[in-house]
Amino acid sequence: MVPTRWVYVYGPDRVDGRGDMKELLGGKGAGLHEMARLGIPVPPGLTITTEACVYFFRNGSFPEGLKEQVREGMALLERWTGKKFGDRVHPLLVSVRSGARVSMPGMMDTILNLGLNDESVQGLAAQTGNPRFAYDSYRRLIEMYADVVLGVDRHLFEERLEAKKQEAGVRSDAELSAEHLRALVEEYKALVEKHADQAFPQDPWTQLWLAIQAVFASWNNARAQEYRKIHGIPDDWGTAANVVTMVFGNMGEDSGTGVAFTRDPATGEPRIYAEYLPNAQGEDVVAGIRTPYKIEEMQRRFPELYEELLRYARILEEHYRDMLDLEFTVEKGKLYFLQVRVGKRTGRAMIRIAVDLVKEGKITREEALRRVDPYKLEEVLHPMLDPAWIRENGHRELTRGIPASPGAAVGTVVLDPEEAARRAEAGEKVILVRAETSPDDIKGMARSEGILTARGGATSHAAVVSRGMGKPCVVGAEALQIDEENRTVTVVGEDGSRVLREGEVITIDGNTGRVYQGEARLIPPEMFGAFDTLLSWADEVRKLRVRANADTPEDAARARAFGAEGIGLARTEHMFFEGERIYAMQEMILADTEEERRAALARLLPYQKEDFKGLFRAMDGYPVTIRTLDPPLHEFLPKDPESQQALSRKLGVPVEKIRSRVEALLELNPMLGFRGCRLGILYPEITEMQARAIFEAACEVARVGVQVYPEVMVPLVSTEGELRNQRDRIEAVAREVFDAYGVEVPYKIGTMIEIPRAALTADEIAGTAEFFSFGTNDLTQTTFGFSRDDVGKFLPKYIEMGILPHDPFQRLDVQGVGQLIRWAVQRGRQTRPDLKVGICGEHGGDPDSVRFCHQVGLDYVSCSPYRVPVARLAAAQAALDGKDQG
Amino acid sequence: MVPTRWVYVYGPDRVDGRGDMKELLGGKGAGLHEMARLGIPVPPGLTITTEACVYFFRNGSFPEGLKEQVREGMALLERWTGKKFGDRVHPLLVSVRSGARVSMPGMMDTILNLGLNDESVQGLAAQTGNPRFAYDSYRRLIEMYADVVLGVDRHLFEERLEAKKQEAGVRSDAELSAEHLRALVEEYKALVEKHADQAFPQDPWTQLWLAIQAVFASWNNARAQEYRKIHGIPDDWGTAANVVTMVFGNMGEDSGTGVAFTRDPATGEPRIYAEYLPNAQGEDVVAGIRTPYKIEEMQRRFPELYEELLRYARILEEHYRDMLDLEFTVEKGKLYFLQVRVGKRTGRAMIRIAVDLVKEGKITREEALRRVDPYKLEEVLHPMLDPAWIRENGHRELTRGIPASPGAAVGTVVLDPEEAARRAEAGEKVILVRAETSPDDIKGMARSEGILTARGGATSHAAVVSRGMGKPCVVGAEALQIDEENRTVTVVGEDGSRVLREGEVITIDGNTGRVYQGEARLIPPEMFGAFDTLLSWADEVRKLRVRANADTPEDAARARAFGAEGIGLARTEHMFFEGERIYAMQEMILADTEEERRAALARLLPYQKEDFKGLFRAMDGYPVTIRTLDPPLHEFLPKDPESQQALSRKLGVPVEKIRSRVEALLELNPMLGFRGCRLGILYPEITEMQARAIFEAACEVARVGVQVYPEVMVPLVSTEGELRNQRDRIEAVAREVFDAYGVEVPYKIGTMIEIPRAALTADEIAGTAEFFSFGTNDLTQTTFGFSRDDVGKFLPKYIEMGILPHDPFQRLDVQGVGQLIRWAVQRGRQTRPDLKVGICGEHGGDPDSVRFCHQVGLDYVSCSPYRVPVARLAAAQAALDGKDQG
Repeated sequence: MVPTRWVYVYGPDRVDGRGDMKELLGGKGAGLHEMARLGIPVPPGLTITTEACVYFFRNGSFPEGLKEQVREGMALLERWTGKKFGDRVHPLLVSVRSGARVSMPGMMDTILNLGLNDESVQGLAAQTGNPRFAYDSYRRLIEMYADVVLGVDRHLFEERLEAKKQEAGVRSDAELSAEHLRALVEEYKALVEKHADQAFPQDPWTQLWLAIQAVFASWNNARAQEYRKIHGIPDDWGTAANVVTMVFGNMGEDSGTGVAFTRDPATGEPRIYAEYLPNAQGEDVVAGIRTPYKIEEMQRRFPELYEELLRYARILEEHYRDMLDLEFTVEKGKLYFLQVRVGKRTGRAMIRIAVDLVKEGKITREEALRRVDPYKLEEVLHPMLDPAWIRENGHRELTRGIPASPGAAVGTVVLDPEEAARRAEAGEKVILVRAETSPDDIKGMARSEGILTARGGATSHAAVVSRGMGKPCVVGAEALQIDEENRTVTVVGEDGSRVLREGEVITIDGNTGRVYQGEARLIPPEMFGAFDTLLSWADEVRKLRVRANADTPEDAARARAFGAEGIGLARTEHMFFEGERIYAMQEMILADTEEERRAALARLLPYQKEDFKGLFRAMDGYPVTIRTLDPPLHEFLPKDPESQQALSRKLGVPVEKIRSRVEALLELNPMLGFRGCRLGILYPEITEMQARAIFEAACEVARVGVQVYPEVMVPLVSTEGELRNQRDRIEAVAREVFDAYGVEVPYKIGTMIEIPRAALTADEIAGTAEFFSFGTNDLTQTTFGFSRDDVGKFLPKYIEMGILPHDPFQRLDVQGVGQLIRWAVQRGRQTRPDLKVGICGEHGGDPDSVRFCHQVGLDYVSCSPYRVPVARLAAAQAALDGKDQG
Repeated sequence: MVPTRWVYVYGPDRVDGRGDMKELLGGKGAGLHEMARLGIPVPPGLTITTEACVYFFRNGSFPEGLKEQVREGMALLERWTGKKFGDRVHPLLVSVRSGARVSMPGMMDTILNLGLNDESVQGLAAQTGNPRFAYDSYRRLIEMYADVVLGVDRHLFEERLEAKKQEAGVRSDAELSAEHLRALVEEYKALVEKHADQAFPQDPWTQLWLAIQAVFASWNNARAQEYRKIHGIPDDWGTAANVVTMVFGNMGEDSGTGVAFTRDPATGEPRIYAEYLPNAQGEDVVAGIRTPYKIEEMQRRFPELYEELLRYARILEEHYRDMLDLEFTVEKGKLYFLQVRVGKRTGRAMIRIAVDLVKEGKITREEALRRVDPYKLEEVLHPMLDPAWIRENGHRELTRGIPASPGAAVGTVVLDPEEAARRAEAGEKVILVRAETSPDDIKGMARSEGILTARGGATSHAAVVSRGMGKPCVVGAEALQIDEENRTVTVVGEDGSRVLREGEVITIDGNTGRVYQGEARLIPPEMFGAFDTLLSWADEVRKLRVRANADTPEDAARARAFGAEGIGLARTEHMFFEGERIYAMQEMILADTEEERRAALARLLPYQKEDFKGLFRAMDGYPVTIRTLDPPLHEFLPKDPESQQALSRKLGVPVEKIRSRVEALLELNPMLGFRGCRLGILYPEITEMQARAIFEAACEVARVGVQVYPEVMVPLVSTEGELRNQRDRIEAVAREVFDAYGVEVPYKIGTMIEIPRAALTADEIAGTAEFFSFGTNDLTQTTFGFSRDDVGKFLPKYIEMGILPHDPFQRLDVQGVGQLIRWAVQRGRQTRPDLKVGICGEHGGDPDSVRFCHQVGLDYVSCSPYRVPVARLAAAQAALDGKDQG
């Protein structure tokens, strides 16, 4: 039997591993082997496999043969470097670093300078002619080793270091002399003996074995476990351990350390982007005490190094066919690469690079499509917080909520929508801060830079409307207590409260849910050719149609510009709040008889008709799905006494009547109350007016050559009887209007599937519906029993605790809600094979959910205009995945 | 080919039909044929089949052969009676009456005295020696015929009659002379000519054919269609038409008419119950002008008739093996039976008769079990409105709501629970009238005779709690506007409003949802031996276990008395409102830290423990399912400023803090908010306290010999992770307590399935749950998207419109909710074959729903104590049905 190979070695004349062996060698290890294979200068080393780690966890000890293989590898390193492990003259020093399949930055442990002891430190001093450097390296080894291997608190060492500086009367570490450091080494050793009940091991092999064990063990430390849970990384993968020859960038001005991206990670521009710090180690860069040179300065000061770097970067990029993130060190004029990996990048860089690589002939269009993360795509369309600002201003964070609509916004805190509108009209940039928003607030929301609410979840009113408007929004920031009377917002924290007054400036980040005090630096959005190019490629491969949720002709036009192929959801009620319309609506609600209601509705009809004409014109040639009235009627009446008085004067209706109607309409659980088609069934005249507006509008624009495809959608259906009731009325109006106009337009009548019962009885409902549109916001609410408005109280905690993997209002819950969808699609198509099926919940713009929609065979997804590009790309990726699978 | 038989004749020497031919001959016809067959005196007649009716509807004409067969039958009637149809000397008169398969009282048309015309009326006058009678009969025929056949408005004839009385200077019809009536006949004929554009037909055959057609047509009149829709009778059954020789009870003191029940329909006592009115026709009895003789007086005055009636009643009951409702007429001393059918009866009579019939050897136990309508069973346990009072006082009806808890109650209107408790303690009987109730109101509810709310549905708080208390309750009476400030209730009606003041007396009927002004006459409940006997038979055949929902030892004891085999749902929160406990609960909610919460919880622990001990003792030997805390926390804090002030003083907590906590806890849709296991997950110390109380109580009573089987039930689970989180904590506490007590009791941990997602992922959840209990109240809410509290706004209308066949909160929606249940049971048992599955929603006490539970293989149902007998019987019937089906 061939003994298992636990150790892979690489160096100038032998490379055991390859770049595609990430599972076995981890990402870092595979990269080192691959570079060695390509002839890129790397410090020689060896990689102990993830399998050895897994064995170690299962058995509590190294597998047979591992130590021998490591010894053989170390012998090779000695041969290649001409040094000797633990030697008092030419000591070989190594680092031991973890490296899992996927990068887990900073999660696991590393030990540097391994191989130093009381004897070899002298060798290092002699060899480098720099005793200060040698003792500093030794001190660091002891500290790291004590912490990582022996579990001694690192602060003890830091305290000693501080004491030593005081003793020496110096302020920085660098001012300590070799003598100071030598003394410190002794003190450190004493500390180890005292706190670990054992001496720091002088035997380098003991150091090595224990260091490898410690690196393996760090796979299971608390923060690594947490990180894996958050990122969905399996616990049983294990980590590899890399033993790499040390190279030092801090050996003088001909040494240094740096990082490089083969293209600009912020913009994607095809030019190398690097930072270099002479006479420094990686830690010094991280500590941020000295400012590294940017690429231009590097080119000027170290032209040879720059050229060399450029050359290797080109080779590597050519080889990896992607933008790379490289770490390098220069030791006495010699360049070494320590790490290669695919580079992280902003959304816009991601797009630019993918498209450029296609143009450069390096990757195919399909590869380009697969490489762009659709979640990042939306970022491009909104201002974003400058990452550098965040690094510098983390302490300004006030609180966190649920990220509900992407982009960042800066503005003054304003607590009510009227005031927000007033200030905005006067030129002030404002952030509307509310407990929650209601349809009443829309005007104020439209004028604000962004919206922040204390309540609600990712599909609350504030969230949905903000996304529709393309405005940054953070919801469910439960720590906020809003006092409208005193015009203050109190941020309740564990260590006391802070009070913000109206007019103070804050910044909200709709990508992360964070709220900051003061004005942050934003990066403006930028449209560019690569964006359109990529999406045009996406359109070629996707099967799903992409529509937009749009309520106004302006939204519809924007949606078309983003590539929407129709409207999947026009919420008619959003049209009722503008100008004079609201009064007609309110009169309708206050009416006592059907006649009065009809009179008020007749006044609404021309408005609705104009709106619909606008939508039809904007979507010439594409379907427009119009939902009949959905929200509970009380949303249209004012709740506070003052506004009720004003309304009373305006309409000439006794305020007492308004009050009593508001009271009669109030509900304990309006989400499950008198709304949706329930309204249209009890007040058929409402549905009739809306149907009339739709069909008259359609006929009028059809006459002038617009191609209209109205789809009338009945909301909140839970039984077939409800839909039948509404369909009969809508059809009757359609016939009437067509007869009157002498025009006939093709139309469909269908229903939202947003109540579990509708999904469960989809076979029956499909007998009456020509299309289904999954209203996954409500369907998620009812399937989980989660109110989108109240979920902030426990959902963030659920996700933190791992009870839910993600917010089901943002990413479709495939297991539960998805099961209902799957069932409804199958059953519905059994009854009606040509049933058109789409989704118009917020999930229609979420890439993972779009993938699911593709898999279950929907015809289209519909989302807010700004997410249309996201959906187009996600749909293309889903189609490519489908192709792969057969 | 044998020609189809459309006509079945019965008489002294030939009977074509049988009693089991109801489908063909209708109920009335089949009864007449069967009586004739048994030798019971019936006026001879013939029945035209329902098939003829169906043919008539399909083809618009009588089928071939029908007329010939009718003529043959009429010839037989002539032979048997010695009279001749249309004869001027001995005219044969007949009635034409509808008669469907099932009784549809008053829904369809009847024509009497057919065969009279200007000539035969003289014959009748001569034959009877009573011209007044003859012309009165003729007048009535013309009126009925004009109305039913020719569609002339009946009021026109009534106006003429009134005018004639004025002319004659008399007040009652009876005072009109033969001459007056003869003149009236002429006026009536003129009216017909004028309004129907045709003369009243003198040809008796024309009369007959058109009358038969009219009776057929009446099957499709609007009120019959409506009736069928309500009672689920298929439209295509059609009605039979009976042509029956007329007999007259108004031919003098040796004539008369009456009805008889073979047993007392109110009590079930085995003695005949009859009413008899001499010298009268059926119409006179209905008109209620004269008071009929009761059976005792009849026996005294007409002993021979009484004996004859008794004899035939015995023969018929022996034959039909059930209590019968008979109509009879005496013509000149000769008794005729006109109708036989199974008699309607009260719930208690139903039980008594079924059990008596078994004892008399007439039916089997299984038949007895099948014959008792479980919906009627509950009636026996509560006071009910005297039907006679309702007949006389229909105008006192104020409004209707949803019947939520059975029984009737009389009391003074009181608008708040404190006042209700005060008045009740002073000896006043009160009805608590509220917009809706909350857990705060429980004390007041307990002291009231009944509860009436303006909002809510059949599973609202008021409904559920009332049923638990066995108190009459009407909810969702949306016409009520309650003004607590002015202490009035306004009943908004279409014809104006009425104002009730606090202290006025009303009556509520929890069986029908009706509310009456003033004090109604009630029939008290009565327990009796037959009830227990019947239920003991039910217990022998049923497969389902029956448990009770009970929160207190008193409820538990009552449930045991009703035959409950354990507790299926103990709502721990109901225990938190009594006495001092509420303060500890409130302190817990107001606590800022886990420590403070734990301190408050520690004070609650002893109370909970005592409660659980009481439950365990009452259910010695049976399982007790205890649900951990379920309602949202804001339910425990006062909302009004006054009570907040009081609480502030009591607890020494700033009122500002109470207010702000209330505000922070308020939710837009609390039903879908921070409640159920979501509380126990975020505040694990609550679950831990409750688990501790359960297991300590169990150990303490187990030590003294009580057999305890606690089942801890986690509410509102939507993901397996939630249940696992809570199970881990509960198990840890159990281990701790068992160790401390040195006692181990068997226990189970399971979950409510009350959220669609839990049902959809039942396979996964069953891995963690040892039992499921379907919480069908919440499951119905979320599956339909109906809030139980707000459904009153549209659900009654939905049922009226036929969009839903019944209230899904009262009777399980098998198609939607039932599908989730079926799925969850199957998937759950796939994962865990011995999974125990029950139901604890209100449907557990609804007979139809119990049948479904049996069919899908549940182990038990659980319902409020008063419905335990209902469930026992329903379970038995379901088992019997199952046996039938194989």
